[in-house]
Amino acid sequence: MSNQLTPVELRHQSRSGIFTDQTSGLCPGYTQANLVILPKSQAYDFLLFAQRNPKPCPILEVADAGSRQLRTFAQDVDLAKDFPKYRVYENGKMVSEPTDVADLWRDDLVSFLIGCSFSFEAALIAAGIEMRHITMHRNVPMYSTNIKAKSAGIFHGNYVVSMRPIPESQVVKAVTITERLPQVHGTPLQIGDPAAIGITDLDHPDFGDAVDIHPGEVPVFWACGVTPQQVVMQSKPEFVITHSPGHMLVTDVKDNQLADIL
Amino acid sequence: MSNQLTPVELRHQSRSGIFTDQTSGLCPGYTQANLVILPKSQAYDFLLFAQRNPKPCPILEVADAGSRQLRTFAQDVDLAKDFPKYRVYENGKMVSEPTDVADLWRDDLVSFLIGCSFSFEAALIAAGIEMRHITMHRNVPMYSTNIKAKSAGIFHGNYVVSMRPIPESQVVKAVTITERLPQVHGTPLQIGDPAAIGITDLDHPDFGDAVDIHPGEVPVFWACGVTPQQVVMQSKPEFVITHSPGHMLVTDVKDNQLADIL
Repeated sequence: MSNQLTPVELRHQSRSGIFTDQTSGLCPGYTQANLVILPKSQAYDFLLFAQRNPKPCPILEVADAGSRQLRTFAQDVDLAKDFPKYRVYENGKMVSEPTDVADLWRDDLVSFLIGCSFSFEAALIAAGIEMRHITMHRNVPMYSTNIKAKSAGIFHGNYVVSMRPIPESQVVKAVTITERLPQVHGTPLQIGDPAAIGITDLDHPDFGDAVDIHPGEVPVFWACGVTPQQVVMQSKPEFVITHSPGHMLVTDVKDNQLADIL
Repeated sequence: MSNQLTPVELRHQSRSGIFTDQTSGLCPGYTQANLVILPKSQAYDFLLFAQRNPKPCPILEVADAGSRQLRTFAQDVDLAKDFPKYRVYENGKMVSEPTDVADLWRDDLVSFLIGCSFSFEAALIAAGIEMRHITMHRNVPMYSTNIKAKSAGIFHGNYVVSMRPIPESQVVKAVTITERLPQVHGTPLQIGDPAAIGITDLDHPDFGDAVDIHPGEVPVFWACGVTPQQVVMQSKPEFVITHSPGHMLVTDVKDNQLADIL
């Protein structure tokens, strides 16, 4: 049923508490966004971290301090209610997983919307490239690496990457398609040599699920949006709100409009 | 003589006060950068302004607060000395134009390096597209427009654009070449219709010099790096340092490496 909803209808259902589920596959074609909410005192460091590390941390939009509205990615929106589920952390520890954070809202909170790999996977699938984890009904495999992010203020850490097995004959196409989507992680970081970025065992990802790699396929690694979340958590900020994994904001912007918006 | 210098040699000459001239045409092939230095208290608003307006305000690198070093665009560098000439503004009014700002340096100053159109002009010329203002030995014509930048905190204002006449047969090429350079203003904002963006008289630019437009040529407008400077000045910050126009930092990064760096 939800597949028939428009993005604004889905946001209304999340806002009223009717919809509290994952958003994977909903409103196909529309850009979904990750969320990090930080107090203004840490917003500069985080924005600078994103500027210095655009591949793992592609910022779609930053709301004004205290504002629960957006200007570009959605009109009728309430950032404190329109994600189906949130996670609230204090001093690096999750303290609750509510469907609404309006009662926790403060005038100094800054919301960062971050690009999500759903957008580039849609482009790859449209080009005839199989996403193995989707075929296998699994979460994409993600790995910690030895690639150091450029630090900014209190935020530092290593890149997390996601891996998709690609047939050798489609690797070039996978590069050129994702090159056109710098707003959602852009080109791969590594093709075919996991050890070169510090990954020792593809069968045991650090996050998500392992997937099969068939003969003639190459593991291709992209910067992953888990990087900024892990980096924020490692710095143990006093207060941070994120979306609950998989429970994204569905925006009014279509994936194929992304290149024109940013 | 200076044409033979490497970027680091030119920076050394600027640092020691030997070289105090414009940098146009020097160290061909190397990226040059504009400068805005603001106190940390205004750095978040400015970085957010740049995030929201990447076409007129493409950030190449942001130094750590108080630091006169860079991490990516140059190694042996002193941001307080290596621009050939600076401008110092207090409350929106220029108070000096020194060749060195080391004596004004403070621990809370944040340096923003901003992309410069020299980089994309080099790519256009390499593709066989004449830059009329260069042929005519003039400054590029720049115009205020009716395009509102997205505001951020104290910073708001309209886009300034630069104009280059392009033969009709080369307009597509000019678009595709600059699309590959989002770090230096990217694709044009407008092709052929100055009135659509509020420009009434091409012969009287608001900044720079008018240039000839030949029959069969179309005026093509790109977002201009004067935008952030004008926006900063209009907000009359208590203290800001910029480079003196034309007196850029020559970095260690080649123009054709820009796409891989950011």
